[in-house]
Amino acid sequence: MNPKALYALSYGLYIVASKKGERINGQTANTVFQISNNPSTIAIGVNKSNLTREFIQESRRFTVSVLAQDAPLSLIGQFGFKSGREVDKFARYTHKTTANGLPYLIDHTLTFFEARVMQEVDAGTHIIFIGEIAEAEVLQEGAPMTYAYYQQVKRGGAPPAAIATGSK
Amino acid sequence: MNPKALYALSYGLYIVASKKGERINGQTANTVFQISNNPSTIAIGVNKSNLTREFIQESRRFTVSVLAQDAPLSLIGQFGFKSGREVDKFARYTHKTTANGLPYLIDHTLTFFEARVMQEVDAGTHIIFIGEIAEAEVLQEGAPMTYAYYQQVKRGGAPPAAIATGSK
Repeated sequence: MNPKALYALSYGLYIVASKKGERINGQTANTVFQISNNPSTIAIGVNKSNLTREFIQESRRFTVSVLAQDAPLSLIGQFGFKSGREVDKFARYTHKTTANGLPYLIDHTLTFFEARVMQEVDAGTHIIFIGEIAEAEVLQEGAPMTYAYYQQVKRGGAPPAAIATGSK
Repeated sequence: MNPKALYALSYGLYIVASKKGERINGQTANTVFQISNNPSTIAIGVNKSNLTREFIQESRRFTVSVLAQDAPLSLIGQFGFKSGREVDKFARYTHKTTANGLPYLIDHTLTFFEARVMQEVDAGTHIIFIGEIAEAEVLQEGAPMTYAYYQQVKRGGAPPAAIATGSK
């Protein structure tokens, strides 16, 4: 078996966020994919050790901010390499909240959406949350950040728990 | 709600395949994601109406062939717009089978892997299969086909059921 075979899979790069009471938090994620239309459902993979996982299980909702290709490494580092247990990750970046009070990024963000959790699946180190889209808006046109672009052009590293394919 | 917000998500383009008895079949898919390491687990989304879904539920295994960027529209059309109920999709293309007898493509393929189904999740129109990697090999180096490249450069359309984000 050659584990590099899995490196050829393509991903985007996103900020997945949620809230618990008055606290908000978010993290980088590469596993965000649409499952079906009518209704529109989305699946995301979140490491069990992450605070955002706890917030999603509490609020039963999450947002996804789709990063633009021009998102700086500092932003990805803020959300990917730091823990919401120690810093308020959103404090440094322009953000808004949905009608349900969940945060999403404005800076370097193409689109965002909020989903209501319909199912969660225990997949070992990660939870897969399957949600139905409740709100979705386009903020600006542009090329989305991909995980390949982040690695090859931006020379970014992989946060050990924030990105599902953490060994890359 | 603006459904275009979901169009900014990034995907690769793959052939997901399986077998039932002596029959083999495969289909295009864009929802293939690594979920965890140790063990390496993969999630795929497959439309319930597709023959490959039936084959995966029978054999409890599936392969993923990661398409190269130079994969022609004719290959994607063969696996994305035709049904294995009517044609032998693999007949026209060089392919091999894994130790368990599951087919994978050789033509225009960067890497392939086989997974054993550990969980399946009913997600409305689609099933999400979560599998553990059993075999994985690199066939050639190169840029992977992305769904964005397929749409923008190759001007390809979306098979109604083969690709999870079928409305695009």
